[in-house]
Amino acid sequence: MNGADALITTLADNGVTACFANPGTSEMQFVSALDREPRMRSVLCLFEGVATGAADGYGRMAGKPACTLLHLGPGYANGAANLHNARRAFTPVVNVIGDHATYHRDFDAPLNSDIAALAAPNSVWVKSAETADSVGPLAAEAIIAAYGTPGGNACLVLPADAAWNEATVKGPMVTPPAFAAPDAASVEAVAKALGGATKPVLLLGSGACGEAALAAAGRLAAHGVRVLTDTFTARQARGEGRFRPDKLPYFGELALKDLDGVDLIVLVATQTPVAFFAYPDRPSVLVPEGCSVETLCGREVDAAAALNALADALGAPAAGPVETYAAPDAPAGRLDAWAIGAAIARHMPTDTIISDDAVTAGLPIFTQTKAARAHDWLSLTGGAIGQGIPLAIGAAVACPDRKVLALTGDGAGMYTVQGLWTVVREKLDVTVVVFANHAYRILGIELGRTGAGNPGPAAAKLLDLGDPRIDWVKLAEGLGMAAERVATAEAFEEAFARAMATPGPRLIEAAM
Amino acid sequence: MNGADALITTLADNGVTACFANPGTSEMQFVSALDREPRMRSVLCLFEGVATGAADGYGRMAGKPACTLLHLGPGYANGAANLHNARRAFTPVVNVIGDHATYHRDFDAPLNSDIAALAAPNSVWVKSAETADSVGPLAAEAIIAAYGTPGGNACLVLPADAAWNEATVKGPMVTPPAFAAPDAASVEAVAKALGGATKPVLLLGSGACGEAALAAAGRLAAHGVRVLTDTFTARQARGEGRFRPDKLPYFGELALKDLDGVDLIVLVATQTPVAFFAYPDRPSVLVPEGCSVETLCGREVDAAAALNALADALGAPAAGPVETYAAPDAPAGRLDAWAIGAAIARHMPTDTIISDDAVTAGLPIFTQTKAARAHDWLSLTGGAIGQGIPLAIGAAVACPDRKVLALTGDGAGMYTVQGLWTVVREKLDVTVVVFANHAYRILGIELGRTGAGNPGPAAAKLLDLGDPRIDWVKLAEGLGMAAERVATAEAFEEAFARAMATPGPRLIEAAM
Repeated sequence: MNGADALITTLADNGVTACFANPGTSEMQFVSALDREPRMRSVLCLFEGVATGAADGYGRMAGKPACTLLHLGPGYANGAANLHNARRAFTPVVNVIGDHATYHRDFDAPLNSDIAALAAPNSVWVKSAETADSVGPLAAEAIIAAYGTPGGNACLVLPADAAWNEATVKGPMVTPPAFAAPDAASVEAVAKALGGATKPVLLLGSGACGEAALAAAGRLAAHGVRVLTDTFTARQARGEGRFRPDKLPYFGELALKDLDGVDLIVLVATQTPVAFFAYPDRPSVLVPEGCSVETLCGREVDAAAALNALADALGAPAAGPVETYAAPDAPAGRLDAWAIGAAIARHMPTDTIISDDAVTAGLPIFTQTKAARAHDWLSLTGGAIGQGIPLAIGAAVACPDRKVLALTGDGAGMYTVQGLWTVVREKLDVTVVVFANHAYRILGIELGRTGAGNPGPAAAKLLDLGDPRIDWVKLAEGLGMAAERVATAEAFEEAFARAMATPGPRLIEAAM
Repeated sequence: MNGADALITTLADNGVTACFANPGTSEMQFVSALDREPRMRSVLCLFEGVATGAADGYGRMAGKPACTLLHLGPGYANGAANLHNARRAFTPVVNVIGDHATYHRDFDAPLNSDIAALAAPNSVWVKSAETADSVGPLAAEAIIAAYGTPGGNACLVLPADAAWNEATVKGPMVTPPAFAAPDAASVEAVAKALGGATKPVLLLGSGACGEAALAAAGRLAAHGVRVLTDTFTARQARGEGRFRPDKLPYFGELALKDLDGVDLIVLVATQTPVAFFAYPDRPSVLVPEGCSVETLCGREVDAAAALNALADALGAPAAGPVETYAAPDAPAGRLDAWAIGAAIARHMPTDTIISDDAVTAGLPIFTQTKAARAHDWLSLTGGAIGQGIPLAIGAAVACPDRKVLALTGDGAGMYTVQGLWTVVREKLDVTVVVFANHAYRILGIELGRTGAGNPGPAAAKLLDLGDPRIDWVKLAEGLGMAAERVATAEAFEEAFARAMATPGPRLIEAAM
């Protein structure tokens, strides 16, 4: 057993059985050791941002960490944007970052860099295994750290000699930390505050949007409390049979309008709402004048238990309202996000997982699917576009029996287009819908909002993706994926229904 | 004039007139200000790694910095791998990293992160412009820092409010720092050491491979001193009319074999040679037993002046040997890197710029082109693959009258494939050659060298790119680029000759 064996065995012993990898020379021992640990499924990604986004998607759906395998500082850096998103989703991820042999670092070879310093800003835990015998125990530490609670990125730096030297120990079996029980005093205080409020809202964060927490929040809705979620949540149980909260609008002024008159915001596993970006002369904090803010529980607490305790304290009904299945009418005519959302709602099967990197198209589809078959919706939590395809890969590896739908803007999709190849290679049941509006549409909106005025030709050119026009069908086919382009609502509906009925990789370019 | 105007004006005043950009909401003021500064050419890149690699290529060829425009921490991170390469090339680059408004950071909105901490490991200078009036002066500081000497990454964090607020000052005109004059004592000491050595070599780093420094090194070669360069140099003047040094082999054992019996290594703008990676039971430092190491000059010194001073001190001839043009025979039969190199040497025009990210195919082509028409060769200095296409973009923007050739492995090319789109959009005279061997071929070699043994099926799968097979012609066409696939030496020669004779973007997939 060398250090790499100790690492992979410790990971597998603790249920970390998926590895999204883009290895290099310093990781060859790890790669070789994979053949000695059949419990580990390794998935090659052609760019590290695909690997880290996939680990995020896996963690959100499996409720346990995958690992990534990254090649020194630059490999980590390539994956850091999607790890930023994972951090904001509180997803457990174990990143194994290969490094030069310990004694080789001092010579500052070309690939040398300060990996720990690079990884620190996005991580809850960073350590380097300086000896073969430290690899297993540190891997166990990393797993615990990744779980949290709440979860996050744990980065284990693996020097090449720690991997190739003989190891005498592997790491222990560890128990994932449990979320804390709700604090009785907080429950009582919030119950009292709700009693005195005339227009209270409950705001749910990522940790409070699973099926159990939403059912508990539904009880409070039945009691008359309006329930909202953060604009972007890691994973939300939606559709048939689920309670449907509202969503805090993305633009701050719309959020404040929506909260107009609210005199109490109760935070559940989230923080005081703030605008996604600052704008001249607009507020950062999205709390109306005179509104007080109370916290039911932080992210380290079992949100479902806290919400049920609150519901019990208020004497709320045992169950709240849930959606009954209702499909929109068949869309017709012009192809827009509303039409696409209607088709999706009509045809996606029960338990579909939606990875949303659709940017401006996301909200219409979110709205259209509110009463669709039961599904999980995974949002872009950290604002770093390029998450849609990678997240879908990880979700599909975690849940091989569920249909996965990656919704991506064309600008966002180009960031991690390499992921299409991995979808095909792993024969994942992923349908990719690309919203081909040939623009960074959101930036056209934001340019005006930031007070930057109307774009001149130079500015307009930086928001435009139409010259040359990207042909997503050719791109997908170039990476081995079956693809088609549709330009009307009817054609989309037909293509999408076919994709839902047929397992396996497929891309639909929605020409908008 | 707002802060963004002050920034762009200061940049343009100081000759920073190319901006490789992937902006987001927090950069809209900068984007808008571009229309008020016609001296700045902005180039949209669909992924930040393309933007930073392009800035590296621009800096290597223009000898002055370009700027990048990046969107907060994740945008920087996406560009960090190619900035790692730029750091190792000592290329001057000014990175403008947009940030939230200063007052908005404390609220920890989703895109918030510690940008300065992320940027520090790859940078020579990182500062944040906290007010509109600090933007211009700090931009001038960043430019000076980027120049060095030697050059490096300077990162100017630009909070949104510093960009949109009114500025009363722009930054000063600054003078790029000059490289230092050679130190007479060092020259004398090296001259003396050379006099006492029986088998000395001169080792040239990135800063000593320009035309003037190589001509000076040629004088020493004429005096009987063997001249080598580092394995990977930022920019090397090669071919007809240039002195041709040898290159230190990539693999450590080959380097040591090449240096066998050498009793003196003289470092010129470089460091003691070390192996690219560590391997079990192989040395890290590539200096033979008993060989002494002397330094003629560090990277902050004018290497050409130092080499000429040394040549003068030794009484070396006024000029050394230079290559005369000699083309290999027309290649025939099987298409391999040697055949491709022959075709390149036969057809590339004078002053071609070669961006080399060809990995295992690089050395054969380097060898074949040794007596080709005069050209510049840009190496992968930092080992972070995915540099080839981006670097070519920047080189082509810097040198619009020169043919640019991007040589890329298929694995490397997939990292930043988005760059093809920018080549087309900007109508750059870039020919991309993709070595489609459908494998991470280098890793197959390295797996054995690291002692990791023969790959089992799991390991082999992580080195293989052939399932599904990537169709580079479709990929290129999907991004608007004319492309063709060739599978024989004759077909390559014909396609390549045509590409050289025709201006504009073109991709050749070399099926190997």
